[in-house]
Amino acid sequence: MRDTVLILNGPNLNALGRREPEKYGLRGLEALNLEWQQWAQAHGVKVVSEQSNSEGLLLDLLHRAEEEGKVSVILFNPGAFTHTSRALRDAIASLSLPVIEVHITNVAAREEWRQHSTIAEVCKGSIVGLGTLGYRLGLAAALELMESKS
Amino acid sequence: MRDTVLILNGPNLNALGRREPEKYGLRGLEALNLEWQQWAQAHGVKVVSEQSNSEGLLLDLLHRAEEEGKVSVILFNPGAFTHTSRALRDAIASLSLPVIEVHITNVAAREEWRQHSTIAEVCKGSIVGLGTLGYRLGLAAALELMESKS
Amino acid sequence: MRDTVLILNGPNLNALGRREPEKYGLRGLEALNLEWQQWAQAHGVKVVSEQSNSEGLLLDLLHRAEEEGKVSVILFNPGAFTHTSRALRDAIASLSLPVIEVHITNVAAREEWRQHSTIAEVCKGSIVGLGTLGYRLGLAAALELMESKS
Amino acid sequence: MRDTVLILNGPNLNALGRREPEKYGLRGLEALNLEWQQWAQAHGVKVVSEQSNSEGLLLDLLHRAEEEGKVSVILFNPGAFTHTSRALRDAIASLSLPVIEVHITNVAAREEWRQHSTIAEVCKGSIVGLGTLGYRLGLAAALELMESKS
Amino acid sequence: MRDTVLILNGPNLNALGRREPEKYGLRGLEALNLEWQQWAQAHGVKVVSEQSNSEGLLLDLLHRAEEEGKVSVILFNPGAFTHTSRALRDAIASLSLPVIEVHITNVAAREEWRQHSTIAEVCKGSIVGLGTLGYRLGLAAALELMESKS
Amino acid sequence: MRDTVLILNGPNLNALGRREPEKYGLRGLEALNLEWQQWAQAHGVKVVSEQSNSEGLLLDLLHRAEEEGKVSVILFNPGAFTHTSRALRDAIASLSLPVIEVHITNVAAREEWRQHSTIAEVCKGSIVGLGTLGYRLGLAAALELMESKS
Amino acid sequence: MRDTVLILNGPNLNALGRREPEKYGLRGLEALNLEWQQWAQAHGVKVVSEQSNSEGLLLDLLHRAEEEGKVSVILFNPGAFTHTSRALRDAIASLSLPVIEVHITNVAAREEWRQHSTIAEVCKGSIVGLGTLGYRLGLAAALELMESKS
Amino acid sequence: MRDTVLILNGPNLNALGRREPEKYGLRGLEALNLEWQQWAQAHGVKVVSEQSNSEGLLLDLLHRAEEEGKVSVILFNPGAFTHTSRALRDAIASLSLPVIEVHITNVAAREEWRQHSTIAEVCKGSIVGLGTLGYRLGLAAALELMESKS
Amino acid sequence: MRDTVLILNGPNLNALGRREPEKYGLRGLEALNLEWQQWAQAHGVKVVSEQSNSEGLLLDLLHRAEEEGKVSVILFNPGAFTHTSRALRDAIASLSLPVIEVHITNVAAREEWRQHSTIAEVCKGSIVGLGTLGYRLGLAAALELMESKS
Amino acid sequence: MRDTVLILNGPNLNALGRREPEKYGLRGLEALNLEWQQWAQAHGVKVVSEQSNSEGLLLDLLHRAEEEGKVSVILFNPGAFTHTSRALRDAIASLSLPVIEVHITNVAAREEWRQHSTIAEVCKGSIVGLGTLGYRLGLAAALELMESKS
Amino acid sequence: MRDTVLILNGPNLNALGRREPEKYGLRGLEALNLEWQQWAQAHGVKVVSEQSNSEGLLLDLLHRAEEEGKVSVILFNPGAFTHTSRALRDAIASLSLPVIEVHITNVAAREEWRQHSTIAEVCKGSIVGLGTLGYRLGLAAALELMESKS
Amino acid sequence: MRDTVLILNGPNLNALGRREPEKYGLRGLEALNLEWQQWAQAHGVKVVSEQSNSEGLLLDLLHRAEEEGKVSVILFNPGAFTHTSRALRDAIASLSLPVIEVHITNVAAREEWRQHSTIAEVCKGSIVGLGTLGYRLGLAAALELMESKS
Repeated sequence: MRDTVLILNGPNLNALGRREPEKYGLRGLEALNLEWQQWAQAHGVKVVSEQSNSEGLLLDLLHRAEEEGKVSVILFNPGAFTHTSRALRDAIASLSLPVIEVHITNVAAREEWRQHSTIAEVCKGSIVGLGTLGYRLGLAAALELMESKS
Repeated sequence: MRDTVLILNGPNLNALGRREPEKYGLRGLEALNLEWQQWAQAHGVKVVSEQSNSEGLLLDLLHRAEEEGKVSVILFNPGAFTHTSRALRDAIASLSLPVIEVHITNVAAREEWRQHSTIAEVCKGSIVGLGTLGYRLGLAAALELMESKS
Repeated sequence: MRDTVLILNGPNLNALGRREPEKYGLRGLEALNLEWQQWAQAHGVKVVSEQSNSEGLLLDLLHRAEEEGKVSVILFNPGAFTHTSRALRDAIASLSLPVIEVHITNVAAREEWRQHSTIAEVCKGSIVGLGTLGYRLGLAAALELMESKS
Repeated sequence: MRDTVLILNGPNLNALGRREPEKYGLRGLEALNLEWQQWAQAHGVKVVSEQSNSEGLLLDLLHRAEEEGKVSVILFNPGAFTHTSRALRDAIASLSLPVIEVHITNVAAREEWRQHSTIAEVCKGSIVGLGTLGYRLGLAAALELMESKS
Repeated sequence: MRDTVLILNGPNLNALGRREPEKYGLRGLEALNLEWQQWAQAHGVKVVSEQSNSEGLLLDLLHRAEEEGKVSVILFNPGAFTHTSRALRDAIASLSLPVIEVHITNVAAREEWRQHSTIAEVCKGSIVGLGTLGYRLGLAAALELMESKS
Repeated sequence: MRDTVLILNGPNLNALGRREPEKYGLRGLEALNLEWQQWAQAHGVKVVSEQSNSEGLLLDLLHRAEEEGKVSVILFNPGAFTHTSRALRDAIASLSLPVIEVHITNVAAREEWRQHSTIAEVCKGSIVGLGTLGYRLGLAAALELMESKS
Repeated sequence: MRDTVLILNGPNLNALGRREPEKYGLRGLEALNLEWQQWAQAHGVKVVSEQSNSEGLLLDLLHRAEEEGKVSVILFNPGAFTHTSRALRDAIASLSLPVIEVHITNVAAREEWRQHSTIAEVCKGSIVGLGTLGYRLGLAAALELMESKS
Repeated sequence: MRDTVLILNGPNLNALGRREPEKYGLRGLEALNLEWQQWAQAHGVKVVSEQSNSEGLLLDLLHRAEEEGKVSVILFNPGAFTHTSRALRDAIASLSLPVIEVHITNVAAREEWRQHSTIAEVCKGSIVGLGTLGYRLGLAAALELMESKS
Repeated sequence: MRDTVLILNGPNLNALGRREPEKYGLRGLEALNLEWQQWAQAHGVKVVSEQSNSEGLLLDLLHRAEEEGKVSVILFNPGAFTHTSRALRDAIASLSLPVIEVHITNVAAREEWRQHSTIAEVCKGSIVGLGTLGYRLGLAAALELMESKS
Repeated sequence: MRDTVLILNGPNLNALGRREPEKYGLRGLEALNLEWQQWAQAHGVKVVSEQSNSEGLLLDLLHRAEEEGKVSVILFNPGAFTHTSRALRDAIASLSLPVIEVHITNVAAREEWRQHSTIAEVCKGSIVGLGTLGYRLGLAAALELMESKS
Repeated sequence: MRDTVLILNGPNLNALGRREPEKYGLRGLEALNLEWQQWAQAHGVKVVSEQSNSEGLLLDLLHRAEEEGKVSVILFNPGAFTHTSRALRDAIASLSLPVIEVHITNVAAREEWRQHSTIAEVCKGSIVGLGTLGYRLGLAAALELMESKS
Repeated sequence: MRDTVLILNGPNLNALGRREPEKYGLRGLEALNLEWQQWAQAHGVKVVSEQSNSEGLLLDLLHRAEEEGKVSVILFNPGAFTHTSRALRDAIASLSLPVIEVHITNVAAREEWRQHSTIAEVCKGSIVGLGTLGYRLGLAAALELMESKS
């Protein structure tokens, strides 16, 4: 049964809390995960959170989500791979699962290269620049998607 | 007292429901407005919805929101002006109010010219491709912004 | 009953006759309208002619043509908006009516920016560079379209 | 005496009727020529139709039209040479005869490379996207040009 | 008799004084107008000041200045339309009146898109980056133009 | 009955053997044709080999292959026309026959302009950089295509 | 003794059979490997097949092939890394072994970014768009290379 | 005491009066200098005028103006160096003195390369296209800057 | 014995004398040929002059010059093919004969596309913009090349 | 205590000594490490050398250097990732440690894509093209940085 | 009386003979000057040869040639300034004298930046790639120009 | 005997110490020269330091270094000429002496135009962004080059 939202974070997001906190905020991934688990419990779904600096591992995780049959929606913040990885785009295109792209900072207000996402075109949609609140809005959207399917 | 969320819709969004419904959905602005008013009532804030095909009038509405002192957050879907109007960008930059950009369709999966937003860099953030649900997520984000200020 | 051809002229075409007459000719819009009405009478259809310098009003006129149910074909000379307006393109894309683009001068022989039309891709076709005769050829094409439908 | 309209068709237009009929229509060049001859007879002018896949031969035909003194106006559909041939442009520029560019399909709605015409700047004007009706509108325009000269 | 200088201000200049005052200064349009009227009185010419956020209305004002026969020189600060409007360029090109472009800030030291003016090529010249003093220098230039004509 | 593979070679391939032999090899077209005929005999199909420096003639040959009903697959090395001819692309697009693109040298390791093929998008596939062995691999692929059809 | 052909497949090719089967076919890597082993046995060479989603591991495999002294030719389908990885290009450039690039789909008929291969310039050649038959043609080419060396 | 305005003219301005007089006017630098000295006397400031065709000497003059302590404002017409010299830009950036850029012709209406100024971003502002009147407007602006400082 | 200079003229040069005579001069190819023959006689070499509008025929002539063993140097004015033909470039690259490019007009002072020559890189050198004198200078250069070889 | 210099080498640098030795030299990483250890001993600091072909592992090593508190300066040769990895740039930007970029070859004299470094903007500086001497100069710079801090 | 040809050589041409002799030949400027003087004597005109590495001095020499009234034609090899100097272009544009551009090497076969000349558009024509013979052909052209004027 | 290192500084480096000291440091060229002389004495080589704002003079100095036979290595900071001068590039290419490029600031972290060096491709290597320490590292590299030659 597909009753899980997978929150996937890419490179350098392991350093959340330490990394340029004026941009990315003061909370690390563990604190965020706690918040997501509480939300999950409150809404009766499961949330699994993964982070990796390895493009290869992120690809494996995407394929596994499709194949293991538990994940229903993926929230994906691919970090800097957003702007360089065609392989992640191809992996998402190969999935039947909807993927929602999340970015903590407003990438449109930063360097030019940060303004093109290789994966956006194969995602359902994106939530950008609203800080870590973006993940929670993504969870709300995921819930709606799960309900509209069932 | 700034207790109102202004939902501003730009050109051709008057035709919601009739316009390419496979992309933009079957509901028109009135139906959506009804949904937003119910949400407003449930959350104790005011929501005002405006639409115009005129860039000049949209500029006037943005300045008025700042000057009349009622609006706290703006949700803005500038339609095709998103990709051509520098004047709207300058108007938003002149405001002290946060603006959240909303797009119904996943512009990243459409024409190349739809993939650059002139206003994104001066907005707080954006919600893209999640259908008309995007406005509701925007309202949730607005509420959070209003609460964190008060 | 859709028995009307709408001839829509955009910015600066109010100055026809006065504006760079070596390029745009010596006749103003009124003289042209007279010619179109005579043609209309001779061919048993109605022709309505509108001009505006306001993009917003042109958008309104396009949507109204669709909604009021009288217009069958639109001849559109969007003037300089041809090269900048994505909103007009989106409006035309939302119509079920065929639109034929008309330009008085041969834009291909002028500045580079005049050589891309944002609306051409959503029009039926275009007639360019044949002076004000272009409108009359457009009327002939409109007639043919109306006959092939009925 | 220059009393002839030359209709010149370039590469692959020999395959009209067989070639992508959903785009180019079901009628071949012979059927079209028949239609043009009838129009010619009805309007008291001569129409000559030529087609070649050879850029060199098309160049020869253009120069011959100028030099033999019979042709008054040329309707030219250069097919794919429209987008690559500078030699055809130079040939047209060397003529004193007006040339009207005709395209059956709406090239503006197709591949990007189809959206630039090397010859347009030296033509009188162009008629695009109106199917094979475009040739007939071109004949009407030619007639008007011939009359305004005599 | 053409004895008037028209000072035309485009979008967002209604917010002068409130808008990014570290860039645009602390004085609003009324205060500036007062200064211009004093200058006008001192130099024996008339100055009329207009502002609009609507491109369509600005176009109308330009054509009216030509047609009403009172305006002799136009000082034009088209705000952000400077960088996007081809219609304003075409309107100015259609006038017999000289237009001088004025910008309060040094646009060359700001975003790249602010560094191209669509109208500059059809203006007499431009005064850029000298703050609101630029309008006064423009008035001095206008006076000189008026004197050299009479 | 379509039982023939047409090997079509474009401009300058008449000079195989003499032309830059360190790149194109020492064997001329006749020697290669001998090899292809032996292969044809061994595999029970017919191979016809044509070469021309004329784009127009190559276009004619492509249309003739379609119309005469003998050719089943085309191996096409368009030489330098690969990078400039839109007409060849349009001709191939008009065929029902599969075309396989063959290049003797590794064009990807040469000048930048050699790295875009105008025809590749309408071909079945391509074999590049494997010397004149490429034609033999192309014949093997053709055989497979013919077998899978029959 | 170098008597082995290494078939190396990059990211997302683990999903062959499941991934967009209308483009990539219905057979997975195991089925293909079976086919390759049969071919190997029939032709008296060894074939080893590897797949990885990790660029780092692919780099390691390339260097290992050079250093272990068993591999004679490499068939490489780098998946989406084809278009982004300069490291794979540098690795291949450092090898003395010939590498043949293989793509299942006709990348020239897909997105623009898929039309540039970073590795092609350092490969021997490429076989593109002929489906999984491309690997078999690559094996035939490898055999020829091995024979011409021995 | 900094009581001097330095008017610096770059390459080819030595030929004013002879050089393309329909663009640059009929007066040479000496005549202009006379006018500037009269203005200086009338306004109680000093004006020094220098011209050089040597980029190196212009750099030296800029540094000397800073270091000698007499110059208060610089009016700079760098001629064609405007479009090519990064060294002049760096020199101006190293000064504490305000520099106003002056161009006699409307560079925006000329060749494309004349439309980018390398120095504009480090100048106070610019006066363009108003003929040699531009220098006098620049002097007026300089006076205002000197007064606002004292 | 290679004792002949081949003067090869490409498309539209058949119209010399008639074609834009203010640019290309008043003399036709026959008059020029007469001049060249006189020069040839005076200098004891042979000159052969050919013109064609067909790229394919020009290619054939280049290869024939190499193969027949009479031509020593080629003067080539490829007309508009200069800017579009990669095949002519490849043909020249395959020759052992030196080719000197000649253009009658100063292509550098005309349209941008006329400023790149596809063949220049494989020619010995070029003579541009000196009118039909350019051919005579080319003959002088050819003579020098022939003498330095013998 | 931060008393260590980390020398980090990216993809393909494992093949130093074997890889294109005319460009990269004949010594492998072990020989270089020996040299660095001797230098370290002579100057009283520690040097640790790591190499990986995996972008993910390099990211991990960068974060670990920050977090373990031993490394004071990083010398980083990211190999081909220099030109493609935005993730490495973001990782370096998140560190408080200075990073000095080192390249063995003069990348400015090689392919165009090698001339942009994604990480340079967030590094302290770079040493390029001086062979493996570059690392030793980097160590000298690191020493100076460490001394200036203490 | 204007009876002199000025041969002007720009930067690094002082090093002719020493500088990359495989490209620029073995003879220095003095040897060439000797040859030019002999030619001058033989043809009854004067030849003056100047070289400078200073752009400013070259500008001065151009203006002086116009003003002193002796020079009739200028042969100009601006060396690398050919590709960067807009000031030299403007200087030549200000002259009434014809200037012929000469380059020793075939710049079209070298780096891309060497393929655009900033001065070509204002020169009479150019002679490129024919070694130092180019100057002698330039002298012949100059003679013809002088004769056609007198 | 070539026993001297020439340190050559280009435009605006005369202002070191005064010029944007937060970027370029507080020490002027004299103080740096003192440091270099001490280093020279300590290492038994000669160091000569030159600075000029004149490109022409820098060219002369480069050629003189080659011709006088004293200089062994050149450290060159061409200031802003780094990004615009092709003549300096050509001069360096004509030398047999190695040149090492030095920049005080990290040009990669500044404006885009500062990120391309015209001379880098003909230099031995470069040292960038390490402040004035860069010259000392350059001296160390020069010493190593001198030793490896002797």
